[in-house]
Amino acid sequence: MSKINVAVLGATGMIGQRFIQLLENHPWFEIGGLYASERSEGKKLKDVLKVRDHSFNDETLDMTIERLETKKISELNRIAFSGLPSDIAGPIESDLADLGVAVFSNAANHRMRDDVPLLIPECNSSHLEAIKQQKTYSNGGYIVTNANCSTTGIAVPLKAIDTSFGLKMVCISTYQAVSGAGYPGVPSLDILCNVVPYIKNEEEKMEMELAKILGDYNGSRFIDANVNVLSNCVRVPVIDGHLESLVFNLSKDADVDKLAGVIRSFTAEPQKLQLPSAPIAPIIVRDEPDRPQPACDAFAGTPARARGMACTVGRIREKDNYFKMFVLSHNTLRGGAGGSVLNAELAVAKKMM
Amino acid sequence: MSKINVAVLGATGMIGQRFIQLLENHPWFEIGGLYASERSEGKKLKDVLKVRDHSFNDETLDMTIERLETKKISELNRIAFSGLPSDIAGPIESDLADLGVAVFSNAANHRMRDDVPLLIPECNSSHLEAIKQQKTYSNGGYIVTNANCSTTGIAVPLKAIDTSFGLKMVCISTYQAVSGAGYPGVPSLDILCNVVPYIKNEEEKMEMELAKILGDYNGSRFIDANVNVLSNCVRVPVIDGHLESLVFNLSKDADVDKLAGVIRSFTAEPQKLQLPSAPIAPIIVRDEPDRPQPACDAFAGTPARARGMACTVGRIREKDNYFKMFVLSHNTLRGGAGGSVLNAELAVAKKMM
Amino acid sequence: MSKINVAVLGATGMIGQRFIQLLENHPWFEIGGLYASERSEGKKLKDVLKVRDHSFNDETLDMTIERLETKKISELNRIAFSGLPSDIAGPIESDLADLGVAVFSNAANHRMRDDVPLLIPECNSSHLEAIKQQKTYSNGGYIVTNANCSTTGIAVPLKAIDTSFGLKMVCISTYQAVSGAGYPGVPSLDILCNVVPYIKNEEEKMEMELAKILGDYNGSRFIDANVNVLSNCVRVPVIDGHLESLVFNLSKDADVDKLAGVIRSFTAEPQKLQLPSAPIAPIIVRDEPDRPQPACDAFAGTPARARGMACTVGRIREKDNYFKMFVLSHNTLRGGAGGSVLNAELAVAKKMM
Amino acid sequence: MSKINVAVLGATGMIGQRFIQLLENHPWFEIGGLYASERSEGKKLKDVLKVRDHSFNDETLDMTIERLETKKISELNRIAFSGLPSDIAGPIESDLADLGVAVFSNAANHRMRDDVPLLIPECNSSHLEAIKQQKTYSNGGYIVTNANCSTTGIAVPLKAIDTSFGLKMVCISTYQAVSGAGYPGVPSLDILCNVVPYIKNEEEKMEMELAKILGDYNGSRFIDANVNVLSNCVRVPVIDGHLESLVFNLSKDADVDKLAGVIRSFTAEPQKLQLPSAPIAPIIVRDEPDRPQPACDAFAGTPARARGMACTVGRIREKDNYFKMFVLSHNTLRGGAGGSVLNAELAVAKKMM
Repeated sequence: MSKINVAVLGATGMIGQRFIQLLENHPWFEIGGLYASERSEGKKLKDVLKVRDHSFNDETLDMTIERLETKKISELNRIAFSGLPSDIAGPIESDLADLGVAVFSNAANHRMRDDVPLLIPECNSSHLEAIKQQKTYSNGGYIVTNANCSTTGIAVPLKAIDTSFGLKMVCISTYQAVSGAGYPGVPSLDILCNVVPYIKNEEEKMEMELAKILGDYNGSRFIDANVNVLSNCVRVPVIDGHLESLVFNLSKDADVDKLAGVIRSFTAEPQKLQLPSAPIAPIIVRDEPDRPQPACDAFAGTPARARGMACTVGRIREKDNYFKMFVLSHNTLRGGAGGSVLNAELAVAKKMM
Repeated sequence: MSKINVAVLGATGMIGQRFIQLLENHPWFEIGGLYASERSEGKKLKDVLKVRDHSFNDETLDMTIERLETKKISELNRIAFSGLPSDIAGPIESDLADLGVAVFSNAANHRMRDDVPLLIPECNSSHLEAIKQQKTYSNGGYIVTNANCSTTGIAVPLKAIDTSFGLKMVCISTYQAVSGAGYPGVPSLDILCNVVPYIKNEEEKMEMELAKILGDYNGSRFIDANVNVLSNCVRVPVIDGHLESLVFNLSKDADVDKLAGVIRSFTAEPQKLQLPSAPIAPIIVRDEPDRPQPACDAFAGTPARARGMACTVGRIREKDNYFKMFVLSHNTLRGGAGGSVLNAELAVAKKMM
Repeated sequence: MSKINVAVLGATGMIGQRFIQLLENHPWFEIGGLYASERSEGKKLKDVLKVRDHSFNDETLDMTIERLETKKISELNRIAFSGLPSDIAGPIESDLADLGVAVFSNAANHRMRDDVPLLIPECNSSHLEAIKQQKTYSNGGYIVTNANCSTTGIAVPLKAIDTSFGLKMVCISTYQAVSGAGYPGVPSLDILCNVVPYIKNEEEKMEMELAKILGDYNGSRFIDANVNVLSNCVRVPVIDGHLESLVFNLSKDADVDKLAGVIRSFTAEPQKLQLPSAPIAPIIVRDEPDRPQPACDAFAGTPARARGMACTVGRIREKDNYFKMFVLSHNTLRGGAGGSVLNAELAVAKKMM
Repeated sequence: MSKINVAVLGATGMIGQRFIQLLENHPWFEIGGLYASERSEGKKLKDVLKVRDHSFNDETLDMTIERLETKKISELNRIAFSGLPSDIAGPIESDLADLGVAVFSNAANHRMRDDVPLLIPECNSSHLEAIKQQKTYSNGGYIVTNANCSTTGIAVPLKAIDTSFGLKMVCISTYQAVSGAGYPGVPSLDILCNVVPYIKNEEEKMEMELAKILGDYNGSRFIDANVNVLSNCVRVPVIDGHLESLVFNLSKDADVDKLAGVIRSFTAEPQKLQLPSAPIAPIIVRDEPDRPQPACDAFAGTPARARGMACTVGRIREKDNYFKMFVLSHNTLRGGAGGSVLNAELAVAKKMM
């Protein structure tokens, strides 16, 4: 099987460069071009690096950033991975779908559309069907979105819990890494020795997105899950990895051991299909008293290609018919570029490409 | 009126030194001696400083640390402020009470006793009556405790809310500063660019203490408030100031404006009595979208003597009959030494000394 | 004496806001207006705060930012304090001098001009004479600059040393706080758990400026000091306070005690004239083995108005005819706004206003 | 060839655990036992982890810590790698040498002995000969030490420079990571948003050790290099990687290009012998304006086994016949456990085992 040509949109940004790292040496995909705004046209990747971890192939580092022109992109690529900022992503992604490109996007613009899957393959792989409602589907163009970084990490264990025990209400407090704000992002003057209890629109996104992801797709539209989601979002001085505290209650009987068992053994379609970026265990449950921690668990996930694609759960406790636990996941891998790469792999495996 | 002699126990620790800062130049109290373990005997305060802010009087810096002998302390001091670590505080504080000393303690050991007030004067000043049940009260000796640092900050606004609207359930997630762990406390290897979702016994303390503080004293014992408290405690790389996120629901009708109004206008006995360390406004409500923050709000409180004694509330929101808000307070001032100084001021004002 | 009206240019920036803090309640100066770019026109100061320490007067917080028009500024103010960024400061400051305004600037643009003093009153108060060479001096307009933040801190002790012992060569390595880069300044992704060995033009500035400051003014031009200055500049994750390590050798005999004595007892014209912002002791020498530190010493300086205006020296050592020591000073107070306020006070005291 | 059994001493500490990581899967060595104080006896490695990076083999994590008894160690192991703290390392290492064990130590105790090599194979591989002077050599026992972490990083490029251009004087300022102090090491209260210009004995060690390493071994004793070394040591809030700024002058003609060329092309005995842990290029020279940085360069070095074993040089500049540059190296790999593993590999390759 020959590899599928893929474009990376927003190649000068944090998420764009995570896409590049994941697509180098990918077994199914070949980077067909790196695209960004006019300002970076002609520069080499190595001159616009944003991620601290510079472990790119030398040939990749020497790739040239091209100006983002949808016509040209569509001629050269079957897929576009979009790490574009949301102030410009909307119409560009629509244009590409019109031109027959399958767009897998990290941007928020199209997430809540009634014909666009907000896809986390471990949670709602059946939602992918919705792309058939997109008017451009017949000529191969469509848009699939991954969820917000703070939504993604907790969605997988909450799906496991909801399926087995019926999730009624969940209170979430986040401890979000600065890489989630892109580059330059959070000024050091704001966050050194400080925490900031505000991330614009983040709480609204989490609350809406979780309901869609945990909900159903009935063949023509999405039906939100009947879950009460209450979130408080906070930025902390951490580079990578969002930690989240959860308090929730359930409609069926449960206890700590049953919960841990269900979460620990959870697998879903990506594992069954053995998608290249799927972690063997999508949720790792730690027994230590003080885990998960960003410093230790952000890059959880095996095999090597799934590094940063597993989320880690710890400190499952019960009190007064409520459960408490912590979840950690990598915000720009599982919760960003990695999420969309996995989505594209699912589409390929399901022959919707 | 001549000043009352007071001892500082644990003068080489973080809380002990906050006591010293607050007792220098105090209008009612005079430092009668600084006490610590044998190891520090004979050293000067200036040689064992733990707090970063070194703004002590020169004479105070030259005071000598003495060995902690209860007999000697009781002969020289009417009051003892205890910043002792909990592994040794229990019997020492009991001894001092036996010897007729009024002990105001930051240690956890006696907090849950049925004859010991867990006192936050803005919340439960009537609980002070419980000291009359202590067998040593007749000869002037008794123990009064302040609450845990993460409990104290939220207790004041929760008291205001409970009184007006009836608090049913509250979920709390903390963002706790490293000074809460004392010195040397949290190793830098654990907390730089990291957050740690575990503080030993902290969640248990919060859950028990809030129920006692918001509850009643019926003249012979304490009756816990009927509130469901669920907490998740996390250490973050901040020096001073605990931020806490809250989600709660109420038994009476409320909305964001009513809640904000009640919280903002709340005052209690310390304000009425004009205690020297009482903030004029015990709760400050901020309207900015991104406050409170440790960097900006940890030292809130006027007048100057009440610096760090006010807590700050922000981002009050409503969703689906739940309310959300953030609270910040200074963990070693309001939530530590400052709490006990205010407790002692209340006892003096109420002539229970 | 009625107060002199002063304008603050760049009032939305870090340095501009330090100017405002220092000019509130100033005994000689009255803030006549806050000026910034069109973008901020009409906003209140409280809505554009950059410094973490929000301790402004309420009336100041309510002041309105005006658009920076030189004509209007000159009509209302005798003095302009400039915290403008260097990409626009040059011509604006020249215009104001043409219009008869005495400009005291933190910007680098005019620092190396042959008729502009690069003034640190403790080092080179006689350089102020150079303003008489400026063609606008006769109608009251002129420009005086303060030095770069990393230059200022060490210039004072080096002046003391040079005067007594003849400074030959000095190697400097800096540990510079992020506030030196203004707001938003250094991205948190670059500096959390990291240090960055590059600050654009900083080493060149230090090397040129020190030679001018330690040099002479012969009545018509500046003559550089014959000192070999070698600097390495590094950004570190600290909010306020530049630490600098020094290795130097001398043309005259010295030892650690003599050096410490000369530095400790150093005073100069600002102390003699008792300028309002002059620290009583411009250099504090600490004997502890581990000082100075940004966390403890950034705000050194008495009286209250001179907070952050003293530099702190520690760890003076000798090896093989070289001396080593550390110096710390506050980069946006002594090394920024405070430096220019002191310069203006000197000009007033010398009746050059 | 069968593998050589090696003991790890101090297996519960930071350096000890780096030894374990490097010795897992080592082609020549087999971990024969993990040893620490009585307090940890019987615990599993996984329960005493100190390094953040937990990527050990599962079997290694399950290894049991044994009590450190020299007799037993000597019976089971041919080599001992010592990560012991210096307050106990001295006599234990001597005992082991007496018992016929080859000791490769990170501790400072024996470093300056006249018959103990202070070995950095890229700098002074001939010094290994000195072990033949040790009285225990004939029965296979001897001690070889690696240098201090802040010495090691700069020693390699300084060796390259000294050989080609004759090093006369070098001023060093360090930016040292907290992992250099071990665990718990530096309290977070001391280092968050701060830098500390003092590390006990560090400057003395650097100055003595560099002279020994760059000097000669004449067959019976070491002759210090005639280099003037002046160092200022500072702790910064970084986890791994010591950055150091250098100013130096030379006895022979040089310029920036020549210097860069010599440093970049430098290789030595470990490269010639292709020792398993030797980096292909021991010094990496970066051309970017803002490198090296701990966040990007701490783990430099290929192949995989040499990760963290290369040092990185950047910003080579000339001024007034002095040169300036920055050097970064990993303090617990190249400057700690990795250094001693490389030393042992050299001894094996030279058949001195």
